[in-house]
Amino acid sequence: MESSSLVSFCQLSNILAPKKVHNYRPLLKQRTSPSTTTLQCHKMYVPGFGEASPEAKAAKHLHDFFTYVAVRIVHSQLESYNEEAYAEMVEFLETHSLSDGGDNFVADLLRQSSTHKTLALRILEVRSAYCKNDFEWDNLKRLSIKMVEERNTKVMRDYVTETSTVNTETETETETET
Amino acid sequence: MESSSLVSFCQLSNILAPKKVHNYRPLLKQRTSPSTTTLQCHKMYVPGFGEASPEAKAAKHLHDFFTYVAVRIVHSQLESYNEEAYAEMVEFLETHSLSDGGDNFVADLLRQSSTHKTLALRILEVRSAYCKNDFEWDNLKRLSIKMVEERNTKVMRDYVTETSTVNTETETETETET
Repeated sequence: MESSSLVSFCQLSNILAPKKVHNYRPLLKQRTSPSTTTLQCHKMYVPGFGEASPEAKAAKHLHDFFTYVAVRIVHSQLESYNEEAYAEMVEFLETHSLSDGGDNFVADLLRQSSTHKTLALRILEVRSAYCKNDFEWDNLKRLSIKMVEERNTKVMRDYVTETSTVNTETETETETET
Repeated sequence: MESSSLVSFCQLSNILAPKKVHNYRPLLKQRTSPSTTTLQCHKMYVPGFGEASPEAKAAKHLHDFFTYVAVRIVHSQLESYNEEAYAEMVEFLETHSLSDGGDNFVADLLRQSSTHKTLALRILEVRSAYCKNDFEWDNLKRLSIKMVEERNTKVMRDYVTETSTVNTETETETETET
């Protein structure tokens, strides 16, 4: 019941949202070759990003993430080999948040004192090295695609399970009455 | 003055945080081959992610981002060819937020009505297609690395400019007094 309902949902989606919509592009944003005047992009139109492409927007989020990762790396390294600097880092983290943007955090750290300045420079160095050499970009793509597929299935499965349960209860009540 | 100060900062960073720290790995998280017992990873240790790797964490953020993009794509498509569905989507967006997670948004949309269900299925389909076929993963990597470099330079330049200005003002005051 469940798998056939899932299949029927997919078919329903295909019928009511024909494949041509996938290629419907009222306006095309040319993101890789701005100098050409002939628009030949076969991708879906993504509105609402202003001057930044979706990739640039995602890069901005990742930038803050890399700063967070760099802070964690440096924090861990200090804990192992430099107690004094570690204590300063911990104290600074208690009063300064990364949620306003990693650059503001690092800029404040840079201005705190000469020893804090060293930590700030270290964080800048680590985030650069991390995103270039350590972060597994292919793995990110693979995990992202996998996550979307799994979550799509889950959303539909939860819905089918819920509606199936409701239907079963309704049928049971009807049988009881007759 | 500015560029030489920037260079001196880089050198300071190199002196006070020797390169060997870059390779210091108290614990190694083996992320790609969990079955081997010999740890031979040459990457920096990234603590604090629990069961999820940094790539998995980043994928989770991107997942919500792709849902947002898919909503925008479908919203734009409806505006062009299905006024009724477009009006329903706009109304739903006014009362439901994507910030609690894209899956919750789609799950609510799925349960709203039969026409809303069609929109929800369409969003699921689009987000899957978008992340697999349209999103420019190589471009994301390139932009991310570029952004980190530019922001690193900016953070250091702003600091140098600020301290240079302070130094210049101090020197001017000293000259006036003598």
